[in-house]
Amino acid sequence: MENTMLDITYDGTYYSGFQIQENAPTIQEAVEKALGIIYKQTVRITGAGRTDAGVHARGQRANFKAPFSIPEDKLPSAVNALLPPDIVITGAERVSGEFHARYDAKRKIYSYTIDRAAFPQVLKRLYSWHLPDRLDLDLMQKAASLFEGTHDFKAFQVSGSGVLDTARTLFRVELDNRPHEQLLVISFEGSGFLYRMVRLITGSLVRAGLGRLNLEEIRASLKGENTSAAGPTSPAAGLCLEKIYYDLNQ
Amino acid sequence: MENTMLDITYDGTYYSGFQIQENAPTIQEAVEKALGIIYKQTVRITGAGRTDAGVHARGQRANFKAPFSIPEDKLPSAVNALLPPDIVITGAERVSGEFHARYDAKRKIYSYTIDRAAFPQVLKRLYSWHLPDRLDLDLMQKAASLFEGTHDFKAFQVSGSGVLDTARTLFRVELDNRPHEQLLVISFEGSGFLYRMVRLITGSLVRAGLGRLNLEEIRASLKGENTSAAGPTSPAAGLCLEKIYYDLNQ
Repeated sequence: MENTMLDITYDGTYYSGFQIQENAPTIQEAVEKALGIIYKQTVRITGAGRTDAGVHARGQRANFKAPFSIPEDKLPSAVNALLPPDIVITGAERVSGEFHARYDAKRKIYSYTIDRAAFPQVLKRLYSWHLPDRLDLDLMQKAASLFEGTHDFKAFQVSGSGVLDTARTLFRVELDNRPHEQLLVISFEGSGFLYRMVRLITGSLVRAGLGRLNLEEIRASLKGENTSAAGPTSPAAGLCLEKIYYDLNQ
Repeated sequence: MENTMLDITYDGTYYSGFQIQENAPTIQEAVEKALGIIYKQTVRITGAGRTDAGVHARGQRANFKAPFSIPEDKLPSAVNALLPPDIVITGAERVSGEFHARYDAKRKIYSYTIDRAAFPQVLKRLYSWHLPDRLDLDLMQKAASLFEGTHDFKAFQVSGSGVLDTARTLFRVELDNRPHEQLLVISFEGSGFLYRMVRLITGSLVRAGLGRLNLEEIRASLKGENTSAAGPTSPAAGLCLEKIYYDLNQ
């Protein structure tokens, strides 16, 4: 059985997230169905990140054990021909038998897009959070910097996920203001992310930008002194899984 | 009756075009329905450009005679609250009683977006034509320049539209290559456009870029010597009505 890694991109608008579940459309289900047709047997994929309902990906990855070999350069087109147009495989790569797309991920990048136009930009509406209010970007960037480094992000997760170790390292939380497009894109690069962590931190950054959350409160929440700085959870549509790094390609 | 002009933006994906028709969803119908609720009577709008099924607009305009007055700054939000999320009114302006959104238009800008990535960019798929083939951009820009100026564009329309005068002036046909986004955006600025003219010219430009159409053939078609340079009609999804100019605001 050859172990293969896929690069998967998708528009998550009409899916109940990546991970397979009963009675709801998921990315995993659609990809496994396509692979099942190609390999003429049940194929299970392991995704690197379990994106939520409505969340997008330009750089999801997943691996699977293939019952027989198909050339790497032929596989994406073969799978795409069997997928709906809102899921597109953009690459395939042979990996070692032990490789695990989730456990072996070293670094991930998420982006969060805020539409700052007075009225929603209609062609961006599925891929952004419309927030016409005035934001203090300097203050937001100062708040963003507080999240960089290794912290216990316990306050910045939706509980009940059962994760015991809530320490994570964020290498970079960066604001990219694009006035010409009336967009603000926040990039999060980290060793790993807790459940809803990016959307909760984005909610905190927006509150800071609106002058409704001060930096001291964020510092306290990162020290575990309270959870008042977390959130609210920003809408799923603005979030996109951009990239996942492994040792093998970096 | 006060004459009011609306700025209308829409994602045309799920509409059968701007202009109202029986048994098919249209932008005009949706906007008239919303206005009808606000004004408690039938309201008819006159659109500046009749975009086709699947074509988008960031800068459509329409005027209508309102039975009573609503402040210009309040009107967009009131209408938007009654519209589906893929149609957004971004402005309203009182205009003179004789103003006609279509007849008084002096200049229009359309954009056509080509996705040049090897695989379709999934978050751009509804707003572009995916064309992974190698394009000679220099040759395409040369071809584009041939269309600039005043010409008889008879060959570059879908016939049967009943228009008698097929002379139009294109002030600008310009390629904007965005390698970072893997997009090629072609802008068309003109005095007016024939039915399917932008999509047919785009088809010609792409054929030129693929080396399948030479500049002489385009020159001949613009002189009315043949129609062989026209098209094929490029897909609707790539087209967007960007802006309409009137004397009143320019």
